[in-house]
Amino acid sequence: MAMQQQTERVIQYNNEFLEKAEQLKPTFRYKEVKPVDLVKVNENPNVIHGWEISREAGADILKSKEFGKGDEAVLDFKTHLVGRVTFDVNAVGSPPDAPAYIRLTFGEMPVEVGEDFSDYNGWLSRSWLQEEYIHVDTLPTHVELPRRYCFRFMKMEVLDTSRKYNVTISNVICRTETSANEKPELMVPEKDKLNRKLEQVSLLTLENCMQDVFEDGPKRDRRLWLGDLRLQAQANYGTFNNDDLVKRCLYLFAAAPDSQGKVAANLFIHPTLMPDDTYLFDYSLFFSTTLYDYAFAANEWETALNLWSTAFRQYEIAAERIDGNDLLMDDESWWSFIDWKDGLNKQAPSHGVFMYALQKGIALAEKVGTDQQTTYLRELYRQLKKAALSHLWSSEKKFFVSGSDKQVSIASQVWMILGGALDKNEAQKLLKRIENETDILGMNTPYMYHHYVEALFQTGLKEEAVKQLQYYWGGMLDHGADTFWELYNPEDLNFSPYGSHIINSYCHAWSCTPIYFLRKYLYN
Amino acid sequence: MAMQQQTERVIQYNNEFLEKAEQLKPTFRYKEVKPVDLVKVNENPNVIHGWEISREAGADILKSKEFGKGDEAVLDFKTHLVGRVTFDVNAVGSPPDAPAYIRLTFGEMPVEVGEDFSDYNGWLSRSWLQEEYIHVDTLPTHVELPRRYCFRFMKMEVLDTSRKYNVTISNVICRTETSANEKPELMVPEKDKLNRKLEQVSLLTLENCMQDVFEDGPKRDRRLWLGDLRLQAQANYGTFNNDDLVKRCLYLFAAAPDSQGKVAANLFIHPTLMPDDTYLFDYSLFFSTTLYDYAFAANEWETALNLWSTAFRQYEIAAERIDGNDLLMDDESWWSFIDWKDGLNKQAPSHGVFMYALQKGIALAEKVGTDQQTTYLRELYRQLKKAALSHLWSSEKKFFVSGSDKQVSIASQVWMILGGALDKNEAQKLLKRIENETDILGMNTPYMYHHYVEALFQTGLKEEAVKQLQYYWGGMLDHGADTFWELYNPEDLNFSPYGSHIINSYCHAWSCTPIYFLRKYLYN
Repeated sequence: MAMQQQTERVIQYNNEFLEKAEQLKPTFRYKEVKPVDLVKVNENPNVIHGWEISREAGADILKSKEFGKGDEAVLDFKTHLVGRVTFDVNAVGSPPDAPAYIRLTFGEMPVEVGEDFSDYNGWLSRSWLQEEYIHVDTLPTHVELPRRYCFRFMKMEVLDTSRKYNVTISNVICRTETSANEKPELMVPEKDKLNRKLEQVSLLTLENCMQDVFEDGPKRDRRLWLGDLRLQAQANYGTFNNDDLVKRCLYLFAAAPDSQGKVAANLFIHPTLMPDDTYLFDYSLFFSTTLYDYAFAANEWETALNLWSTAFRQYEIAAERIDGNDLLMDDESWWSFIDWKDGLNKQAPSHGVFMYALQKGIALAEKVGTDQQTTYLRELYRQLKKAALSHLWSSEKKFFVSGSDKQVSIASQVWMILGGALDKNEAQKLLKRIENETDILGMNTPYMYHHYVEALFQTGLKEEAVKQLQYYWGGMLDHGADTFWELYNPEDLNFSPYGSHIINSYCHAWSCTPIYFLRKYLYN
Repeated sequence: MAMQQQTERVIQYNNEFLEKAEQLKPTFRYKEVKPVDLVKVNENPNVIHGWEISREAGADILKSKEFGKGDEAVLDFKTHLVGRVTFDVNAVGSPPDAPAYIRLTFGEMPVEVGEDFSDYNGWLSRSWLQEEYIHVDTLPTHVELPRRYCFRFMKMEVLDTSRKYNVTISNVICRTETSANEKPELMVPEKDKLNRKLEQVSLLTLENCMQDVFEDGPKRDRRLWLGDLRLQAQANYGTFNNDDLVKRCLYLFAAAPDSQGKVAANLFIHPTLMPDDTYLFDYSLFFSTTLYDYAFAANEWETALNLWSTAFRQYEIAAERIDGNDLLMDDESWWSFIDWKDGLNKQAPSHGVFMYALQKGIALAEKVGTDQQTTYLRELYRQLKKAALSHLWSSEKKFFVSGSDKQVSIASQVWMILGGALDKNEAQKLLKRIENETDILGMNTPYMYHHYVEALFQTGLKEEAVKQLQYYWGGMLDHGADTFWELYNPEDLNFSPYGSHIINSYCHAWSCTPIYFLRKYLYN
C-alpha cells in the first residue's frame, strides 16, 4: 500500500519515546497446532477465486505417504494460523545419495495453493507469496523453516529426491505465535449462530494480527499502520485487553515524526524503527483519535499527557490544508486514504475525518491540553462544520459532494455523519437515502464498510446496521473465511487493488471489527 | 553413482573402529575469499558446453549496483571454491515495504550459471544443482546462506523487491573450508609451464575434496568413495601429508561392513555412519590396497594390524566369484566399476584389479598377516595370473579379451598390466599396440585414464606417459579447468553418464592425480 517516491526526509527520533516503546515489548503466547486433513485442491469456477479443497484423508496418513520426484500433498490445518513450521523428513529405500529438494507453499486461501505463483502479475511484490525452496542435505532431518508463515493450507512438493530413495514428511507442526492474551469468553449466545460465528472469526482475526506490534496483516504487509491500529485498538478494549500493546504502538508513532512533526501513515519496526515515507491526511489525524480511545478505555492519562503535543501537532498540520473557504485543498496525489476505490474523491470524506478527529481532540484537550489549544480546536471544528454545510452539502442532490466534480460517494456521507455534520435525525435520513440511491460511489474495503456500519449504529439505525454487518462480514463467512479479509466486494469476488487477488491479505486488521460492534451495540 | 535397490541388509558396526574414526576428525582451515570480477555469461557454440564468460567490470562495482525486480549479476571468483557464502543486502529508495526475494545460483562452470535449471533432465537428482531461493524480510540484512557451495561463479537474481525500493548486494564473501594442511611448495620449475599448471590445479582439486572425509566431489556426491579415496590418498602422500585423514577413512570403511564382512563402495557419514547399499568388486578390493599404501607411506603399522582382517576378508569374498577356470564370473549387473563407459565388459579388467590388489595384499600379509594368509594370497595370485594368460589372452588379437563377446578394451589391457600379468617388455609392446589400434574400446573418465598413464609410467614408457598426461589433463586446462573434472572425453566434450553435463562434478577426487605422477616419476 503506497507508491510515493522517497525524498530527502529528516526523521526527528525521540529517544525517550523509543525507550518507552521498547519497555512495552509484548510477551508472546505459543501453541503447537497439527494439520487435520490431507486435501486435494481443485479448480471450480463456481467458488470464490475458482479453487476449492476436498478432503482426501486425515492428516495422520501423511507419515505413511512416500514422496518421490514430482509428488505433492496439501495439508489443511482447518483454521488460520500465524507461526513457524517444523517437520521431519525421513528417507525410504536405499540410503539417500542426494539431497531432497522440497518446495513448501503456504496459503490462507485455496487459490494460493492452487495457482502457480510464477503466473503472478500483480503489482505488489511477489515476495509476499509464501513459498520456500529447501535442500535437505542429510536425512533424517528435523526441518525448521526459516520464516513466520500465515496460512491454513500447506502444500509440500518434492521437486527431487533421487532414483534410490523416497521421503516421508511427518510431524508437521505449526507453533503459532501471538502477543494477544488468552481469548476472552464469547458473549454471543450459541443460538445466535451467525453473530457467534462473526464474534469467533473477528476475535481470531484480531488475535493473529497481534504480534510485536498490531500488524495490518500477518501475511502482508506485517506492518503497523495507523488506520488499522485505530480499529484494532477499539476491538481490543473489552476483549483481549492488551492495552499496553496499543500504548507501545502510540509511542512508536510519536517516536519518529518528520521534521514538521507529522506522524507517518505506517512504521517499519525491524531492524530499527523507520517511518515509511507515506503520509496520509486521515491516518495522521488518527494518531490523536487512537490516543483518545486508549486514554479513555484504559483510563490512563500519563500517556495522553506525554503524547499530547504530538497529537495536537497533527491538527495544526492538517489545518495547513484548509483554503479560503475553510475546505480541504484537493489534489491528484494519494494524499488521504479513505478507501481502496478507484476514482474516489478524497476531499469531502477527508473533511469528515478531520471533523471526527477534532471531536475527539477537543475532549482530549480538555483533559490534557491548554485552554488555548482547546479553544483552537473548537474554533477549527466550528469553521469546518460550517464550511461542510455551506460548500459540500448539495441541497439539490441531498448528499454531500466532493471535489470539483461534486462526486457523491458513500464515503463522503459516512464521514460527514461520523464527523457530526448532521444531527441524528438528518443523519438517519441521509443514511436511508444511501440505500435507495443507485448513482452513488460504493465501498471496497471492510475498512470503509466498518465506518458505514458505525454510522448506522451511532445514528440509532441498529436494525440496518446489523443487516449490513451480517450481509458484509457474513458474506465472507459464506465464502469460507477463517479470518476476515483485507478486501471484499460482494459483487466482484476477485477484486484486488493490487492487480491480483492472490496477493490480498485474508486476515486483516481493519476487518476485525464485528467483535467491536457486537460488544458495543448488541451484547453488552 | 549407483542404482541398486536396497534389500534387507545387516550392517556389522564396529564401535571400536567408529571411535577411532571419530578421534581422527580433522581440523579445518578457513579463508575468506572475495569475488574478482562482475561478468556476463554468453552463449557461444564454439566453447565447451556452449557457454563462456566475459568480464564486465571489477567486482568492486557491485556495491554501487542497484537491483530491481528481474535484475541479475554474475560474480567470478576466478578460482574454484568450497565454502560458505555471506553478503549484505541493503535497500535503496523508500523504506523497503516488502521482503526482497533473491535467487542465488552457484556454478563450477559457466554453463551452470548460463542454462536454466528448470530445463534439467538428467537422471541424477536435480537437488545437486546449486541454487537457493531466499526471502530477506528485513533490510539491511547480513545474509548467511544455509549450505556449503562449490563454485567459481555466483549468479544473483533479484526476483522481486517492490515498486518502492531496490537493493544493493555487497560484501560478498566465501569462507572456504578444507581439512587439507597448507599447500606444499610447488616442485615443478616455472619454466615447465604446463606441468606447473598441472601441479597447481591438481593440488587445488585435492585440497577442495579434503573435508570431513576425502570427498569424491565437493559439489556432488560429497561422499567417501573407496575408488576415489585410494587415488586421493596416493596424491596426498608427499603433498598435503594429511595421513590421519586417510587413516580416519579406512577406519570408517572398516567400521561398517555387511554381514559377510564386505566393505561398501562408499559411505554416508552424516547424520550417522551408513554404508551405501552399493558394493563393487573392484572398490571393495581397494580397501586393502589403500591400507597397503597408507601403511607404507606413513610407516605406521598399528592401523594395518587393526584393519588387516577386514582387508583380508575382501580377498576371500572376491575369490567367491572365481569359476572352475579360475576366471571371474561375469554378469549383467553393475558388479564392478572400472570406468563410466557404456558397453564396457568388466570381467577382464576386474580380473586385473584382483591381481593388482593381491600383489599389495601379499606384501601386507608379509608384514601383518599369518603365514597361512600369505600362502593363500600367493596361491590365489598364481592361479589368477595363469587363468588370465590361458583364457583371457587372445594370441590371435594380441590383446586381453573380456566376457563372452571377447571384448577388447583399453581397461582390460591396463589392469592386466597393473596386475602384473605381463613382464615389462611384453607390457610395453601391448601399450604401444593400444596406440595404433582403432578397434578398441576407449576410456571416459580421468579415473580410467589415470590407470592408463600409471601403466605407461610403470612399464618405463615415460615419454608416452607424459604425452598422455599433458594431452588429457592439459586438455581440461585448455577448456578452462580451475580444478580437474569428474568426466572428460576430448572427443565428446558434452559427455556425461548422467544424461546432462550440467550435473557433472568439475572438481573431482579421482582426477587429482597429475600431482602424484609429477612427484613420483618426474620431479622427485
